[in-house]
Amino acid sequence: MSSQIESFNQNRKELNELILSKQNKVINRIFNLDTNAYAAGALSVKTKELLGLVASLVLRCDDCVKYHLQTCFEEGVTEAEVYETLSIGSLVGGTIVIPHLRRAAAFWDELQNSGK
Amino acid sequence: MSSQIESFNQNRKELNELILSKQNKVINRIFNLDTNAYAAGALSVKTKELLGLVASLVLRCDDCVKYHLQTCFEEGVTEAEVYETLSIGSLVGGTIVIPHLRRAAAFWDELQNSGK
Amino acid sequence: MSSQIESFNQNRKELNELILSKQNKVINRIFNLDTNAYAAGALSVKTKELLGLVASLVLRCDDCVKYHLQTCFEEGVTEAEVYETLSIGSLVGGTIVIPHLRRAAAFWDELQNSGK
Amino acid sequence: MSSQIESFNQNRKELNELILSKQNKVINRIFNLDTNAYAAGALSVKTKELLGLVASLVLRCDDCVKYHLQTCFEEGVTEAEVYETLSIGSLVGGTIVIPHLRRAAAFWDELQNSGK
Amino acid sequence: MSSQIESFNQNRKELNELILSKQNKVINRIFNLDTNAYAAGALSVKTKELLGLVASLVLRCDDCVKYHLQTCFEEGVTEAEVYETLSIGSLVGGTIVIPHLRRAAAFWDELQNSGK
Amino acid sequence: MSSQIESFNQNRKELNELILSKQNKVINRIFNLDTNAYAAGALSVKTKELLGLVASLVLRCDDCVKYHLQTCFEEGVTEAEVYETLSIGSLVGGTIVIPHLRRAAAFWDELQNSGK
Repeated sequence: MSSQIESFNQNRKELNELILSKQNKVINRIFNLDTNAYAAGALSVKTKELLGLVASLVLRCDDCVKYHLQTCFEEGVTEAEVYETLSIGSLVGGTIVIPHLRRAAAFWDELQNSGK
Repeated sequence: MSSQIESFNQNRKELNELILSKQNKVINRIFNLDTNAYAAGALSVKTKELLGLVASLVLRCDDCVKYHLQTCFEEGVTEAEVYETLSIGSLVGGTIVIPHLRRAAAFWDELQNSGK
Repeated sequence: MSSQIESFNQNRKELNELILSKQNKVINRIFNLDTNAYAAGALSVKTKELLGLVASLVLRCDDCVKYHLQTCFEEGVTEAEVYETLSIGSLVGGTIVIPHLRRAAAFWDELQNSGK
Repeated sequence: MSSQIESFNQNRKELNELILSKQNKVINRIFNLDTNAYAAGALSVKTKELLGLVASLVLRCDDCVKYHLQTCFEEGVTEAEVYETLSIGSLVGGTIVIPHLRRAAAFWDELQNSGK
Repeated sequence: MSSQIESFNQNRKELNELILSKQNKVINRIFNLDTNAYAAGALSVKTKELLGLVASLVLRCDDCVKYHLQTCFEEGVTEAEVYETLSIGSLVGGTIVIPHLRRAAAFWDELQNSGK
Repeated sequence: MSSQIESFNQNRKELNELILSKQNKVINRIFNLDTNAYAAGALSVKTKELLGLVASLVLRCDDCVKYHLQTCFEEGVTEAEVYETLSIGSLVGGTIVIPHLRRAAAFWDELQNSGK
């Protein structure tokens, strides 16, 4: 796995553990809800991950975009599907989104090249 | 059709025509792009409309939410699918989204009752 | 009670019930969390309501501002405390916040005059 | 003057007076700064009003857009200049801005027809 | 003091001086107002810093969060109080806030370990 | 040219090429529109770049601010004009904008010292 992906996941894991160790009930429940919300239901996991991806892009959260790109990759989402999702986010969110689109494109390429 | 739906669509149509009549090239092309972005491609129209809906909700744009709810309704999206999409938007966007969720719920109910 | 306050609360109550009746688990849990987060803990209810107020103002959510103004009013927060909270929100959030500050000021005055 | 313009200005004036009467120093200084920031300097009043207009549009504040449209109108800004400014805001801010663009277009037309 | 805290403060100080040296009146007054807004008044410095912290978190400004965490630390705010404030910000602002919450948690831990 | 400017431009160029190579029609058209929107029309290139700068600042996009600062520099915009534009952005967007103002000030200084 490329170093960007690995360090992103490692850092995310360590800080999540730090936060959860503080045992703030509201925060810990938000973390739980986050896991539940993307489980299969009336919509498939794949569709929900695309929803998470576009929401993250228009809100311009690089870490959230990376997280959902990774889950999309694991769910077998194709490159064309990812880019159509990113295109809707770029249109809805405007050119202010483009720097985040650049970082998304770089991360997606790393995922493709990660041999995972 | 209920009066909220009708007046929303009428107002939207009239003001779109006013804007397009000004013949600003950049604005008119953005309007064109908006039509193209939601056409079927690697992703279905239905999935794209759900992406538009969740993006609109997290960006807290009532008119955009109403527009996509209406297109979702026309595409035969089920209530459970709409609410799962809204739930992801509410989780990602936070409780600040709830007033917009309220207005979305009211508009969706009008669509259901519109006998259309 | 003045009509603005009453209609705000009535509308809020009806649409909350509509949303909760749909039984989407994620949404219903978010509503639950919202109740828990403002309960007394290391911080008092009053301080938490002021936190909710300033967060609502900088995110420019009129309905959220009204809701927290009302709870502040019920908690006995003074006008000077409310305005200091609003002033921090206006400074942090910028002049774009001023139209929301206007509506907050009008609603606070109604609360004061509501004889409640 | 049309009723939308008149009621907007009347409401704005009354609520500004209400806020200023509370004598919160930070808020009152923000109001003062707002007056100073748009005065002629290295940049002309006209250019500064266009800056205020585009900032208001991308931040999606209808009241702020209306205020700057009115000042632009008084400064003799042409319709083409207004629409080029709005087009940059729509491109930078994305299609989420379009509902605000609609309301801006309606208000600008009222200004043109106000015979002022 | 840990290197993250030190470099943050050093960089902040140098660039503030650079900005103030340009003598733009509006900017310099905004900097002044920022100092005044958090002074003791009807609300205590501690409460105002918590207001600044939650506003910074929901607006997802890492530097602003770090600044207010540092002032909270100096004011003797407890960890439970900090986390309750962060929990309200995470609930109001949604899961999009979580990456900023992670960086806040890491910075708070550095403050605790700084031996200051 | 200083290394920050050079690496910013190099990274931007490479990732733009990566994105465009994916041949997503909507994204590629947004990139085209972006070029057209800042061309001379009823407003000069200089004024349009200032509009792009203030919009980028209030939306708190560092890369977008850097891009427009660079184009402003090439268009011969003076330091006083840049700072008046930044001051309007800081007032409209609030103190949450200040960390981005810091990075803008540092980048502008690099441009001045780049000997270009």
